[in-house]
Amino acid sequence: MLIEVLPSAGSPWVPSLANKIAVVIDVFRATSTMVTALANGCQAIIPVLTTEEALERRRTEKGALLAGERKALRIEGFDLGNSPFEYTPEVVGGKKIIMTTTNGTRAIQTVAAAQQVWIASFLNTESVAQSISKYLETNENIEGIVIICAGSEDRFDIPDTLCAGMLINRIGTGAELNDLGLAASMLYNMTKGNILETLQETEHGRLLNSLGFDRDVTYCAQTNILPIVPILKNGEIVWDMDSY
Amino acid sequence: MLIEVLPSAGSPWVPSLANKIAVVIDVFRATSTMVTALANGCQAIIPVLTTEEALERRRTEKGALLAGERKALRIEGFDLGNSPFEYTPEVVGGKKIIMTTTNGTRAIQTVAAAQQVWIASFLNTESVAQSISKYLETNENIEGIVIICAGSEDRFDIPDTLCAGMLINRIGTGAELNDLGLAASMLYNMTKGNILETLQETEHGRLLNSLGFDRDVTYCAQTNILPIVPILKNGEIVWDMDSY
Repeated sequence: MLIEVLPSAGSPWVPSLANKIAVVIDVFRATSTMVTALANGCQAIIPVLTTEEALERRRTEKGALLAGERKALRIEGFDLGNSPFEYTPEVVGGKKIIMTTTNGTRAIQTVAAAQQVWIASFLNTESVAQSISKYLETNENIEGIVIICAGSEDRFDIPDTLCAGMLINRIGTGAELNDLGLAASMLYNMTKGNILETLQETEHGRLLNSLGFDRDVTYCAQTNILPIVPILKNGEIVWDMDSY
Repeated sequence: MLIEVLPSAGSPWVPSLANKIAVVIDVFRATSTMVTALANGCQAIIPVLTTEEALERRRTEKGALLAGERKALRIEGFDLGNSPFEYTPEVVGGKKIIMTTTNGTRAIQTVAAAQQVWIASFLNTESVAQSISKYLETNENIEGIVIICAGSEDRFDIPDTLCAGMLINRIGTGAELNDLGLAASMLYNMTKGNILETLQETEHGRLLNSLGFDRDVTYCAQTNILPIVPILKNGEIVWDMDSY
């Protein structure tokens, strides 16, 4: 089994996805927020690339909420931004959400052709790891796992890489790793005792703090608090109850 | 002072180079080989992007050697491949070398517009660090340092990243780091006691070993054995004697 980590949504190199499964990670904040929304009763999240696509999609998805950010701030006229604290049961319960974020939704598109795609964050790493292990047992054709970090503005980002490292430590025993996978595992092992402090030192952590989102940073740094297994199914992110 | 590390020659994101200096690292093997060539009396290295450009350039550079690799092997008809052991004083002494490599020469082009460009490898990190410190003392306009890792096939690669971390630890006291710079520094601190063993585990290290270049891997993992300070001057890489 080969595990490859990609550094960013705009990674110039994407491996073949044939006979592979994929995991998308965007700790700050798209995948943390998606996991939270599903935990709070959201029916499905429809990831789209652009604001225009989101608006057009809402015409056919009656009652869906529009969500998204650009440069970490809510898109004007949209119902929700990218802070997990906005996605309360009262707001998202029973609803579909059409979401576009700078990096997270682009990263999902990049690996959408994989045999199965999971959405992970620190909040639900353990549940995703269990689901992947279970999937591998019954899908013997799978030759590799591609973990795509959304990154920040097409750049390597420590938060997503650490979460990839956490996942690799859980599912990667005996797997062959690409260099970024090996580095992710090493960095996670080095910082797992102080994830929050490490995230606060990163570029994205500092940006969120400067914008008043320090509560989001603290929230997204929590590990395994939500037993949610989001997968991409027919273009929508849903809670895969079978894997629960 | 801001220090930014770029992951690969094909990095989708390149910062502004105005009022910045740059360092190019390609441990396996372009910059290790360039440093070795200069230490062995090579007059200058002319980095070019393509085989065709190399052949054309030789028409005007009488007596220059043609050097380069594709997929780690010598280009057919060229005088030299990319193994530092080929660049002996007998072969390269007093000569110019026109060189094209998969990632190294592309990485040089990417940052060629910086105010000054250094070429670094594990072999000469300390000398480059000293030269940069000296340069910063007399060039107060410099606001940042861009370290570009050549990487492997547009991908993050551990050897170059570790060398970037070694350089940052030497010149980066008090500097602001981008996430990859911070990760590079952490990874170097974690592995500095066993650089060779770490490089042997990487994708590029394994590839070179499988091709019979294990001696190159061992050689390139040596730190600070050559007091060479190569800089880019009028499109040629030369030993900057002033910095020696």
